[in-house]
Amino acid sequence: MTPDAFRRHGHAMVDWVASYMERVEGLPVYPQVAPGAIRALLPHEPPVEGEPWEVIAADLDRVVLPGVVGWQSPDWFAFFPANVSGPSILGELASAGLGQQGMLWATSPACTELEAHVLDWLVGMLGLPEAFRSDGAGGGVLHDSASSAALTALVAARSRAAVSDGELVAYVSTQTHSSVEKDARVAGIPHLRLIDVDATFAMRVDLLEVQVAADRAAGLVPFFVAASVGTTSSLAVDPVRALGELCARERLWLHVDAAMAGVAAICPELRGLNDGVELADSYSTNPHKWLLTNFDCTLFYVRDRQALVDALSIVPEYLRNAASAAGSVIDYRDWQVPLGRRFRALKLWFVIRHYGVAGLQAFIRHGVALAAELVTWVAADARFVLVAPPRLGLVCVRHLDGDEATLRIVEAVNASGRAALTQTRLAGHATIRISIGQTHTERRHVAALWAQILSLA
Amino acid sequence: MTPDAFRRHGHAMVDWVASYMERVEGLPVYPQVAPGAIRALLPHEPPVEGEPWEVIAADLDRVVLPGVVGWQSPDWFAFFPANVSGPSILGELASAGLGQQGMLWATSPACTELEAHVLDWLVGMLGLPEAFRSDGAGGGVLHDSASSAALTALVAARSRAAVSDGELVAYVSTQTHSSVEKDARVAGIPHLRLIDVDATFAMRVDLLEVQVAADRAAGLVPFFVAASVGTTSSLAVDPVRALGELCARERLWLHVDAAMAGVAAICPELRGLNDGVELADSYSTNPHKWLLTNFDCTLFYVRDRQALVDALSIVPEYLRNAASAAGSVIDYRDWQVPLGRRFRALKLWFVIRHYGVAGLQAFIRHGVALAAELVTWVAADARFVLVAPPRLGLVCVRHLDGDEATLRIVEAVNASGRAALTQTRLAGHATIRISIGQTHTERRHVAALWAQILSLA
Repeated sequence: MTPDAFRRHGHAMVDWVASYMERVEGLPVYPQVAPGAIRALLPHEPPVEGEPWEVIAADLDRVVLPGVVGWQSPDWFAFFPANVSGPSILGELASAGLGQQGMLWATSPACTELEAHVLDWLVGMLGLPEAFRSDGAGGGVLHDSASSAALTALVAARSRAAVSDGELVAYVSTQTHSSVEKDARVAGIPHLRLIDVDATFAMRVDLLEVQVAADRAAGLVPFFVAASVGTTSSLAVDPVRALGELCARERLWLHVDAAMAGVAAICPELRGLNDGVELADSYSTNPHKWLLTNFDCTLFYVRDRQALVDALSIVPEYLRNAASAAGSVIDYRDWQVPLGRRFRALKLWFVIRHYGVAGLQAFIRHGVALAAELVTWVAADARFVLVAPPRLGLVCVRHLDGDEATLRIVEAVNASGRAALTQTRLAGHATIRISIGQTHTERRHVAALWAQILSLA
Repeated sequence: MTPDAFRRHGHAMVDWVASYMERVEGLPVYPQVAPGAIRALLPHEPPVEGEPWEVIAADLDRVVLPGVVGWQSPDWFAFFPANVSGPSILGELASAGLGQQGMLWATSPACTELEAHVLDWLVGMLGLPEAFRSDGAGGGVLHDSASSAALTALVAARSRAAVSDGELVAYVSTQTHSSVEKDARVAGIPHLRLIDVDATFAMRVDLLEVQVAADRAAGLVPFFVAASVGTTSSLAVDPVRALGELCARERLWLHVDAAMAGVAAICPELRGLNDGVELADSYSTNPHKWLLTNFDCTLFYVRDRQALVDALSIVPEYLRNAASAAGSVIDYRDWQVPLGRRFRALKLWFVIRHYGVAGLQAFIRHGVALAAELVTWVAADARFVLVAPPRLGLVCVRHLDGDEATLRIVEAVNASGRAALTQTRLAGHATIRISIGQTHTERRHVAALWAQILSLA
């Protein structure tokens, strides 16, 4: 494809994406598509000769859209906002065109330095500890997901603990995202304890302390605690300060997973979310969840970047270079599991510059205000009750008639195609999670959802 | 950014990418930029108010390009081709615009089914074993990198071995890519053996057999062998068939890492690369290296997908859904470490359809022919000698005056900005790797490189 053909087809593809943005509100949020229906639209064999671009591009409407889920719909209240924005999409486009491999500073100084710089910006923007800045002993890096960030933290923590694997014990709460359990399995951590939570679904430090003592008495080696700032089910916030003090006393690595909630700290009035984070060894939050940036874009910070390098650096001959040898640069390959890496910082840089800090704050406040208004509507209806303290953009409710009535509402809303919800379980009850924060969600969308829920109730 | 503004800025960004494609040949392949020089162009603080888009986009030229490395230059002979193409970039653009999360079939039937289908296409296109197809017990998935694919294979193999971690032993050759050693460290595999290679840099099965026996005698549990089809330093091919027979006898998981070389099997005359692959439990190769597709795009196949699910599936309440419960769909979250996943299949689908199988074959043959011609030039010069058997697009040479003379050439070429090379070490000798296969590399670029090398010699 020549540059001129790329211009032509690229303009058309930009137009198609713009038209998708315009159409998405009218499309079913969950398409009613049977397993195998999309594959049935595809030929059994690939084409031998190339096809005209117009035919290929037209299949976005014919083949792809029928199986696309409305993650970008303003009626999206499921899982997490996953909010894409124009500047972010254009960052992905530029990144794809430049085709950089940022595994070493030497293989892309632009990718490496822009990433380090933007992540230092975000330390200030989110009110995170100065120790996370790369101009000291710490630093930030972009990962694909909070799963990968927590895996990297686990591996660094194990390396720092420097004991035989067979004895290691990691700790999470019963509300911690399943990815940390998966990470522990991947890393081969033999013991993972699920600590119980209090009435707000936050980890109980007293129980953790007892468990750590019991494990030590049994000859095991506690080494890692993952705290959640915003659990998946209810955005519960673990007591990070108390956990940090315990971890300091017990010499445990404290990782703080603030996947969806952490970015809200861009608003000074919400910085209570960061209480105690200065005691953490590592921290992650996802602009790809609620800061207008395309997946994949997870911020991962450490207080001591040498711990990552000690755990993950292997330098074969073909990766040696003068800049790395001089120790004057960051080589991000040592900060993550894969070797290769995309130029992810471009999209984040574009988003921050296009919206500005004030624009991003306004966006977060908008979602929080919509959720607060929804809470007043829930309180006004005797059939529904809040299952957890509402926080930020998440409202968790259940129908007083019980699990069946509650789950039927989730199923009916999802089957209607008019909005998307996720179910969860809290304190033994089936619960409706209403997650507000999609890029284009307005008051009218939340009102329509609540009206639909009431009509189903 | 409204859809109309996105159209306007998107067209301009497409034009910028097209202009980069046109300009890249004239830009220094390795820019001469000092550590910190890119950061010095960036303001210390992020903007409070949003900036005009034109100002942001202009900084691609002012701030980013001075630190961009010419991975997309036709004069790129370093590392691997990393070849981007127009259709692939447009696939990234569409994927970013749709903002899908393909963790479950239910969260994006389009992402899941297109991926499964295109990976089945590639089984046929590359002449891989039918057992890797998803309509049987196996299946393919897109990962970000061969590192992540090998990590997943290690974890599935450990799960299948079902023994205490403390006893496990994995095997690679001394030429295996460092990522497998890193993966073993991440997975907490206590013992990794580096088996010596023969004169072609291929793993010696006889030595592996002896080592496995010795490890069993010592009470350890051999469980995993990673074979390379195309090592990084010289594209050496391990004896996969003999390794597979040994692994079958010894009940070891055989993973075949064909990162750069494997895609060449799209040409029937190069399918010797697949000899014995039907004996492998898992296999990976990277269209993002040499099949015109943007990073990240690694094909990862398994013969028994249940082994992945057994190793990696954890199902919390918020991920439950009817389609998954019915067992009628693929949920790719269980085929990888992270939970979230992008719609990567779009770019690969676009590439296959735009070029057709015949077009992709022609592209590979073009690179192989250029390398073959370069080999004749090397043979004609008494100062240089081939260090390894030339294979596919890779030619490994050294200067007969020794390491210093050889390394000086690599440094001088890279410092010149006219081309990019990578050094490696083979059989004790510093070696120049000349990797041919960038999207736009023609005979004149290889000829210019060789002329430059001769003038430096």
